[in-house]
Amino acid sequence: MAGRGFPALEFEARVKRAQALMARDEIAALLLTTEPDIRYFSGFLTRFWQSPTRPWFLVVPASGAPIAVIPSIGADLMSRTWVRDIRTWRSPDLEDDGVSLLADTLKECVERGAIAVPNGHETHLRMPLADFDVLKAKLGSIVIKGDNDLMRALRMVKSDAEVVKIERACEIAGNTFARVHEFAKPGVALEEVFRRFQMTCLDEGADWVPYLAGGLGKGGYSDVISPASDQPLTAGDVLMLDTGLVFDGYFSDFDRNYAIGKVDQRAIDAHARLIDASDAAYELAKPGVTASELFHAMDKIVTGGARCSDASGSDAGRFGHGLGMQLTEWPSLIAADHTVIEEGMVLTLEPGIDVGNGRLLVHEENIVITESGARMLSPMINGDLPVIG
Amino acid sequence: MAGRGFPALEFEARVKRAQALMARDEIAALLLTTEPDIRYFSGFLTRFWQSPTRPWFLVVPASGAPIAVIPSIGADLMSRTWVRDIRTWRSPDLEDDGVSLLADTLKECVERGAIAVPNGHETHLRMPLADFDVLKAKLGSIVIKGDNDLMRALRMVKSDAEVVKIERACEIAGNTFARVHEFAKPGVALEEVFRRFQMTCLDEGADWVPYLAGGLGKGGYSDVISPASDQPLTAGDVLMLDTGLVFDGYFSDFDRNYAIGKVDQRAIDAHARLIDASDAAYELAKPGVTASELFHAMDKIVTGGARCSDASGSDAGRFGHGLGMQLTEWPSLIAADHTVIEEGMVLTLEPGIDVGNGRLLVHEENIVITESGARMLSPMINGDLPVIG
Repeated sequence: MAGRGFPALEFEARVKRAQALMARDEIAALLLTTEPDIRYFSGFLTRFWQSPTRPWFLVVPASGAPIAVIPSIGADLMSRTWVRDIRTWRSPDLEDDGVSLLADTLKECVERGAIAVPNGHETHLRMPLADFDVLKAKLGSIVIKGDNDLMRALRMVKSDAEVVKIERACEIAGNTFARVHEFAKPGVALEEVFRRFQMTCLDEGADWVPYLAGGLGKGGYSDVISPASDQPLTAGDVLMLDTGLVFDGYFSDFDRNYAIGKVDQRAIDAHARLIDASDAAYELAKPGVTASELFHAMDKIVTGGARCSDASGSDAGRFGHGLGMQLTEWPSLIAADHTVIEEGMVLTLEPGIDVGNGRLLVHEENIVITESGARMLSPMINGDLPVIG
Repeated sequence: MAGRGFPALEFEARVKRAQALMARDEIAALLLTTEPDIRYFSGFLTRFWQSPTRPWFLVVPASGAPIAVIPSIGADLMSRTWVRDIRTWRSPDLEDDGVSLLADTLKECVERGAIAVPNGHETHLRMPLADFDVLKAKLGSIVIKGDNDLMRALRMVKSDAEVVKIERACEIAGNTFARVHEFAKPGVALEEVFRRFQMTCLDEGADWVPYLAGGLGKGGYSDVISPASDQPLTAGDVLMLDTGLVFDGYFSDFDRNYAIGKVDQRAIDAHARLIDASDAAYELAKPGVTASELFHAMDKIVTGGARCSDASGSDAGRFGHGLGMQLTEWPSLIAADHTVIEEGMVLTLEPGIDVGNGRLLVHEENIVITESGARMLSPMINGDLPVIG
């Protein structure tokens, strides 16, 4: 059974890995502002990030432990992590919302070299731009540069302890999908299915359900990101549910498709082909192959035949991605991403297929890369499209 | 009954208000990158923002309708909004993730004047910093400046149609709090209470439950942002549950406190005083008073007596805030915030009180400002601390 939190040793190892890369890139201090980056080194876990009011900062110096520069409302919770150097201000402060305190902290850490912030793909700076300008001015000659994808490199490879949490999240999701027939029946509105699905995730042990998407339509669905409508499940529809639920701060992210009664043969064939595609990627996935190669393994199967009219990949633009503290992480399973797959990476395999008339089907699994190959984290299924009603 | 979405007229009015402020500040185009800002003008509602992979952009020109510059995965959903000019790219694109398309779009919009991005308190830019630098380079002599808190001014005042949605969210939360006794009993672990509370929110009609915080402790709790522990509800504890649930993209945000069996008299008195405080702010709240005055009305009651040892406000640093598409919005009910309260603002009244030994109690209500005063959106309660078990 997966427990809560991590031992301090886990964070020490993460900091050590970071500091090795920082030394390589002459980074004197790493400045982090987002929830997952701050949690990665501190273990600071709260849903309070839902509030955009207050900025939060974590500084990782070239040596030694991280320093938290945070609103005082978070002091109690941060003091229960392994972080010992906690500097607070009473936020919101409309005159100086932690910027001077942060500048002073950074100056202490930097003798030579630059400060780095994550600035590449999939990153953003979670502080007001005006405050960032003030910070740069306060730092004078000290330069802030990009992190050269350091955080990406670190977070992309999961520790065994992280994998345990993701695996537990996947188990909860799997148990939830096994109960979909309890509430998804012909005539029930999709929004009711969404509600019951989320309730079941919680009932099965999810801490919360940050993400649920789905699709519903005759023989396929037109998109995979819409909120649920009041459209009732109707014979001939394909229903897809795709959840990102969280256990102890780590996500699962996989989907399942269902036929409502008798559906078009093209949908049944398309589903079988999607399973073939994710199986092919699963077989190929091991240390040393690239994200691009995993994409092509799936793409060849999805677009290689003529079973579906105008067969082509979905417009999602990718066939999977990393998974961890966020619903989607690096790398991307796309042709252009040549990231080398390593032991400890957790990935989704998510081929999509166009079934014509602007409709698509998407299938998704979660895997972890081991020394010898991939291991399924989501429950393995076969190509048969399960039937409801 | 609150329906889904808004008529196009609602968005046209928002754009018109924005364009009036843009003209005043010589803003040729407003560049928006975050979920609520983009949704404010477009109605684009999806939980897909949970994925940090792709940037999304909305451009509001000085005249005419907004232009969406978005990943193609969102084209279908965006086409179902009132936005007609939708420009897409297949994201993620590791070479150029929408930056050239965005630059070209902005150049079309700017004959003279600058481009503005929100850059003040509570904002951030949701795109990679490296891409923002590339964008600025591509724009050449066209300047990007701050939005002079334009988005804040707009979003702070809600339309009647927005208030209906928030009121529905509050009703769902109120119905949920009325059922807390069904699952919160002595001996039940706090994490189980959290799970059942979220399930009940969904059962009562929430679309999803992005936020739940709480506190549990002998006579008060030590913080209000921690995730739930496996600590069981025990006689003498005060339990607090604070939810931000969503209906059609709009939040409720209020809490309720419960005594588990017989609790310390100080907790009972503190709770009564918190209700007195929020009642005082409620009576005072009308167009023309300031956020600061609302703060002081509560602070006088919370810190003005000697009933509680070392009575003082909580370290949350504020006694309420705006509420709408986000769990917390402008203004802040703090001494330093002199924002003038206007008709249509939706606020939380959230006084906190220190009950000694590092413990506090927090109480929270939701109100809307009408022409003649405030109207409660959360169900009114009296000062009696409800008892469980």
